[in-house]
Amino acid sequence: MKPVCLVLGAGAGIGGNVGRRFAAGGYHSILCRRSDREGLDKLVAQIEGDGGTASGLLLNAVEEGTIETLVESVEQDTGPIEVVLFNLGAQIGDRSLADTSYKAFELGWRMATFALFRLASALIPHMESRGRGVFLVTSATAAVRGNAGQHSHAAAMGGRRMLCQTLNAEFAPKGIHIAHIIIDGPVDAPDTLGRMLGAERYQALREEVGMDNDGLLVPSELAETYFHIAHQHRSAWTHELDLRPYSDRPWWNH
Amino acid sequence: MKPVCLVLGAGAGIGGNVGRRFAAGGYHSILCRRSDREGLDKLVAQIEGDGGTASGLLLNAVEEGTIETLVESVEQDTGPIEVVLFNLGAQIGDRSLADTSYKAFELGWRMATFALFRLASALIPHMESRGRGVFLVTSATAAVRGNAGQHSHAAAMGGRRMLCQTLNAEFAPKGIHIAHIIIDGPVDAPDTLGRMLGAERYQALREEVGMDNDGLLVPSELAETYFHIAHQHRSAWTHELDLRPYSDRPWWNH
Amino acid sequence: MKPVCLVLGAGAGIGGNVGRRFAAGGYHSILCRRSDREGLDKLVAQIEGDGGTASGLLLNAVEEGTIETLVESVEQDTGPIEVVLFNLGAQIGDRSLADTSYKAFELGWRMATFALFRLASALIPHMESRGRGVFLVTSATAAVRGNAGQHSHAAAMGGRRMLCQTLNAEFAPKGIHIAHIIIDGPVDAPDTLGRMLGAERYQALREEVGMDNDGLLVPSELAETYFHIAHQHRSAWTHELDLRPYSDRPWWNH
Amino acid sequence: MKPVCLVLGAGAGIGGNVGRRFAAGGYHSILCRRSDREGLDKLVAQIEGDGGTASGLLLNAVEEGTIETLVESVEQDTGPIEVVLFNLGAQIGDRSLADTSYKAFELGWRMATFALFRLASALIPHMESRGRGVFLVTSATAAVRGNAGQHSHAAAMGGRRMLCQTLNAEFAPKGIHIAHIIIDGPVDAPDTLGRMLGAERYQALREEVGMDNDGLLVPSELAETYFHIAHQHRSAWTHELDLRPYSDRPWWNH
Repeated sequence: MKPVCLVLGAGAGIGGNVGRRFAAGGYHSILCRRSDREGLDKLVAQIEGDGGTASGLLLNAVEEGTIETLVESVEQDTGPIEVVLFNLGAQIGDRSLADTSYKAFELGWRMATFALFRLASALIPHMESRGRGVFLVTSATAAVRGNAGQHSHAAAMGGRRMLCQTLNAEFAPKGIHIAHIIIDGPVDAPDTLGRMLGAERYQALREEVGMDNDGLLVPSELAETYFHIAHQHRSAWTHELDLRPYSDRPWWNH
Repeated sequence: MKPVCLVLGAGAGIGGNVGRRFAAGGYHSILCRRSDREGLDKLVAQIEGDGGTASGLLLNAVEEGTIETLVESVEQDTGPIEVVLFNLGAQIGDRSLADTSYKAFELGWRMATFALFRLASALIPHMESRGRGVFLVTSATAAVRGNAGQHSHAAAMGGRRMLCQTLNAEFAPKGIHIAHIIIDGPVDAPDTLGRMLGAERYQALREEVGMDNDGLLVPSELAETYFHIAHQHRSAWTHELDLRPYSDRPWWNH
Repeated sequence: MKPVCLVLGAGAGIGGNVGRRFAAGGYHSILCRRSDREGLDKLVAQIEGDGGTASGLLLNAVEEGTIETLVESVEQDTGPIEVVLFNLGAQIGDRSLADTSYKAFELGWRMATFALFRLASALIPHMESRGRGVFLVTSATAAVRGNAGQHSHAAAMGGRRMLCQTLNAEFAPKGIHIAHIIIDGPVDAPDTLGRMLGAERYQALREEVGMDNDGLLVPSELAETYFHIAHQHRSAWTHELDLRPYSDRPWWNH
Repeated sequence: MKPVCLVLGAGAGIGGNVGRRFAAGGYHSILCRRSDREGLDKLVAQIEGDGGTASGLLLNAVEEGTIETLVESVEQDTGPIEVVLFNLGAQIGDRSLADTSYKAFELGWRMATFALFRLASALIPHMESRGRGVFLVTSATAAVRGNAGQHSHAAAMGGRRMLCQTLNAEFAPKGIHIAHIIIDGPVDAPDTLGRMLGAERYQALREEVGMDNDGLLVPSELAETYFHIAHQHRSAWTHELDLRPYSDRPWWNH
């Protein structure tokens, strides 16, 4: 039986590529996303075409009970979740305070902070009973710096980061590796960056950063580091790292 | 007409003492807390005894609409809120993940992060129209480091800190001074530390740290720095600072 | 006998203004700078004109033995140094790696890091024997973020910040207040910013930021916060804070 | 011709193991350390026994000109240095301020900060002309937090960290990957930890942390992450990460 890698937020960017990388590395990847059954099926087919195994699930993670039910059913029916990737984002673009509704602010927290807490509450007891487990969390610049227009996103990501630290403090000594991965730049993914910028600006950006597009974070390359982190020996664990393209883009404002 | 200083979370510790300091400095302090009408009346009486003016309000800040209504009624009936202190805490003591309920986690966020966002949304437009205002936010070690057992508190405070940064990024250039004040140690307040430790341990601790108790954060002394920060010239504003007793106590784990 | 406030790096910007503020607050200020006897005399005359007392010394702080001798002679001849401000800068403007000589890199360290260590080694034993003392250290953005072109400055300031933390760890419990003050923006001082930019760009900048110049850090206003920090009760000490103008200037790159 | 991996500070801990890992990965490793010709020869023999190639050099890196000459001669005689590991430490154990001599403080800087600047000045122009290069820097907890007794070490490491950031700011966009690797715990190396603790305490510690010793940082495991970081695609580079054993040891004081 293959070890299971569960991915929450498995779109065409980081989540999907990490699922694919773990499948290539001998895991059975369970890919969850909110919508786009077709895209999900295509991703599973790609993985199977590469000789791996995966399954895909549509799931609205912010709905009550969804994550909890998912964890129990995977643990019972498929096998122990050895690796989980929490990859839900809460980026809604830059919005002034006046344009950030209570609803948007709360939704940011429900997706980026509370869903992580729910996942940890549901899954970590299983990992704890096995004395091992890998808990990867995709995060963002907004977790360490609150830029203008990021009220909802930064508040949610700041909470996410501190939660990763409290989880690490309690569970690293019990053999559970929690990693907070700061994605500090734009990821080259049509369904997130593409949607945020619009097709035209997205294409212009890709052209601007050069032929090989390495001025954007290439998600298949990011996935290599996720895979590495998940396989560090427990004498040498990384809790936090950043990832960004080599070239400094003006809109990072680092 | 005196300038107004509004305090959310005006207990016997930081909030009450800051209200008293501003009243001594010429403000009309409006002191809000969730319960203990008697204690609140006593605080108002003290301020009046010192020759200042204040009013006291019982208010459940996490209830829908309370903060919003408060801000509007103060602005209309009392006068422009020149200084606000957001002093709601969300410390629930150390609890393992297993002992941290969804309800407790959410309540932490509602008090420590979302209530701040609501206050900012309600009040900052008034300050913005005046081109000035001071927004003081009490924070905690948990905003910068997630220690074991602090899942709810640290997630909420991490969100609070990043929100202060996004507010600062948008509104400092518009003349609104936002300060994130990291209280990095135990405050000598009977109604918070006293309640958390129990009367006996609290008394033992006060004795242990010495006759003049300056191994605990003395809230009337903290209030001096709050008052100073609120009166910095806008050419020289502090956004973040820490405050702690001179003596290193083992339970800070710095 | 007045308490003594010793200022290392007392030019027309922060150092001179802090010296003046402490003199106004009842201290005898001892102002040290490397050159410009005339400017120094003028500063002392200003302070005396305000009704305070001060003395001025020319001193090359990087020269062997100068700081050590100064501390001993002040302690013996003038009185206990209650407050010291270490205000030596090491900003040499933006230089590429290729344009940063070994000599410039070493000089940055000698001024910004090693001179602080020497001052601490000479002065803190006196403060320790008295069980009190205030040690104010002016620092810079470069202490917390290494921007392009700042090789010498950032390396020196990063060392300065960590040294302030180790001094605080050892001596705060012994009653010595060490404060690391991050000046995060340009100070409106003719002899530093003015020299760095040249007279014309300096004047243009002052005009650009407005009539009252509060888009630059006004050193007399900064001095108010230095004075406040030095007088915090030891139950509520600040170790680190930032200071910047309210208005976000593009060249800060925050 | 194999790509060259140059290691400064190639003892029996991190440096030697990284050299061995890169040799196993197809590099020619050039191992430099200050003393112990015998140990160095043994290390080279091990690498050759594994089927790799390496050479060993005794070198006092703090001596004038040594690093500069080394870089030039390797570039001319052996081949382009594709990867460099700067692994010089400056840990001298905990010492009070009174017990930290000027000489010790300066030596810390010469080894941990200035030697890195010299290496960068000598090597980066070569890397820049090739449009690529990997610059790995071993760092320590002391780079981000100044604990008691670490005056020399923390000042040097704080400078090291900021220098890594300024190098990254200037050279990442030119294709040079600079990584600041925070070793946040004790490394299981007989010639550093063993010497610092003494043989008896070292052995006791190894027994205390368990049979498989994974409560100490195992250097061969650390080396896997160094190797991974060096091979990240330039669209997804890590600039800073931490490494520590899973189990919380009391003397980390995190």
